[in-house]
Amino acid sequence: MTQNPLFTPVSATGEFGLIELLTDELGPPLDEDILRTIGDDAAVYKIGEGRVHVVTTDVLIESIHFDRTFMPMEYLGVKSMAVNVSDIVAMNARPRFATIALGIPHSVSVEMIQDVYKGIKKSCDAYGMTLIGGDTVAAQKMTLSVTVIGEAEESRVVYRHGAVAGDALCVTGDVGASYAGLRLLLEQNKQLQKSGNGFKPVFDDYKYVIQRHLTPTPRLSAIEALKKANVRPHAMIDISDGLASEVQHICRQSHCGATLTAENLPIHEETKKVAGLFSQDADTYALYGGEDYELLIALPESELKKLPKGVLTQIGVVTEESSIMIETPEGAVIPLQGKGYQHFGGPSDADS
Amino acid sequence: MTQNPLFTPVSATGEFGLIELLTDELGPPLDEDILRTIGDDAAVYKIGEGRVHVVTTDVLIESIHFDRTFMPMEYLGVKSMAVNVSDIVAMNARPRFATIALGIPHSVSVEMIQDVYKGIKKSCDAYGMTLIGGDTVAAQKMTLSVTVIGEAEESRVVYRHGAVAGDALCVTGDVGASYAGLRLLLEQNKQLQKSGNGFKPVFDDYKYVIQRHLTPTPRLSAIEALKKANVRPHAMIDISDGLASEVQHICRQSHCGATLTAENLPIHEETKKVAGLFSQDADTYALYGGEDYELLIALPESELKKLPKGVLTQIGVVTEESSIMIETPEGAVIPLQGKGYQHFGGPSDADS
Repeated sequence: MTQNPLFTPVSATGEFGLIELLTDELGPPLDEDILRTIGDDAAVYKIGEGRVHVVTTDVLIESIHFDRTFMPMEYLGVKSMAVNVSDIVAMNARPRFATIALGIPHSVSVEMIQDVYKGIKKSCDAYGMTLIGGDTVAAQKMTLSVTVIGEAEESRVVYRHGAVAGDALCVTGDVGASYAGLRLLLEQNKQLQKSGNGFKPVFDDYKYVIQRHLTPTPRLSAIEALKKANVRPHAMIDISDGLASEVQHICRQSHCGATLTAENLPIHEETKKVAGLFSQDADTYALYGGEDYELLIALPESELKKLPKGVLTQIGVVTEESSIMIETPEGAVIPLQGKGYQHFGGPSDADS
Repeated sequence: MTQNPLFTPVSATGEFGLIELLTDELGPPLDEDILRTIGDDAAVYKIGEGRVHVVTTDVLIESIHFDRTFMPMEYLGVKSMAVNVSDIVAMNARPRFATIALGIPHSVSVEMIQDVYKGIKKSCDAYGMTLIGGDTVAAQKMTLSVTVIGEAEESRVVYRHGAVAGDALCVTGDVGASYAGLRLLLEQNKQLQKSGNGFKPVFDDYKYVIQRHLTPTPRLSAIEALKKANVRPHAMIDISDGLASEVQHICRQSHCGATLTAENLPIHEETKKVAGLFSQDADTYALYGGEDYELLIALPESELKKLPKGVLTQIGVVTEESSIMIETPEGAVIPLQGKGYQHFGGPSDADS
């Protein structure tokens, strides 16, 4: 296909390529209080007395990020906050203030919006933050654009860069469950469309994975455990686009590589069950599924030992050379494909 | 029409009624650093050392807030920042940090997004702020969701409440021009649709009003003048929904009334020309047009005198009783209708 030189589709650069172009457009920040702009889970700026604020923004759009047929409005409120809180937590900061700009189509009622706010309120209470502002506008598709501001001591902020060879590479909780939940919901929705009212979706056997998809829990508890044990990791990122993609981000920004051990990936029994149901590989869900909102953490093994059991699971080690490898259950060490979820399709992060 | 008791359309409560319901849902904030949440131009929270941050969020959605056929992408970038900066300025604060969540349809190219960012960069440079983060996602309609964080000394923040009887009611710049620009653009677009390529839009005679609509200028210069003269107004709000509506907001929150003088409304010659072109009343543009992004300010007359000429134009006085009146050019004093632009239609602020 011939390309119009004045019209480059976003799929040609991909999400990450586009962000790089736009970052170039802006140039480096001149404000000396700014410690970090684009390129991490959240931006960081000093507010005085050795403290920083970290800020992140994420938008959820109907038909792109969620399907109203299987997303209760209250859950949507919870999730819109959770995905942002996860970015704040990934900087080793605590969420404090949130704003939401809500785009509302005609088919959404006042009661539905109140349910969204019930979910927002629950999230705010759970994570100790406050919704302090917003904007409500008419829109063709339901849109939730959330900004969360968090706080930390400057000396405790953890970035994506900073991992060093020899570090243990760890994750919180388990991975792949959110994708398993989504896979199941999509399948049941397809069945429902096909069979009409005669079909009754089966949710009870898969409560865990469905809940993981609909109302993810950012790991504020993990950073509290880190603080209590006086452990400051070398590098941290939240797992939103998929574990493999996040490992790439940490390695690229830390100028290092990694070797994962497939057998050590923490995968929930229900996730394995769902993968089996679709004759798929649970490791694939774990590596490429995305939307887990767990933390991927690089820290010295000596520091890892200071933490109570169950906070982190070691899934690999950081290596000197830049390649990212995975040891298969059969003992072969092969390159890890870097695919993760990207908007607009486009070349994956690993290929660019 | 019978109403479904489980489905109240948003048009039944209107934008302001909806915001009240949602504010109730959230309850009062428990965080003692929060000085102001919903109900002003921006939320306010303490950051220590007598300083506060103010934060606001506004979303622009294609086909609702702008039409791509007459909105150059660079202007869109400028405007998305300007409408938020205007809210920050209305708190007597300076903008410092911005984030943008950008929803991008397939029909938008990389080059177009780069142009949006060129506009963002220009705005940032003009107002001394920095774009520190963002999110780019696929969307059906182009969506720009912006959050701006500003800073002020706590003692200098100005709210919507605080106006007292006897205060001079003033505006910066002129009012009604943005609506005149929009009216003209809509008309020319209609002509273009009708006549096809044979029609050539006439913009040169109306540069001022069109520019006022496409790239409004938040009045950072006015708050700089206030600071220089050591004047802290009693109440302030930005004129986004229309002057009449903003007068209502200040009066309601300050528990007072106001009497405006129609003859004193600052209206640009071009605005009058456009109103004449459509056989309409320029005062109506000024009172109900909206999107001027000027400031409406209540302050003692003695303070007004400290400011250099040209910074503010007095358009009325604040009164004890809660009614809002306007003196017509013929000398009659009549109640001012409170209509301003509201999303979702719905009962106007004055009626609720």
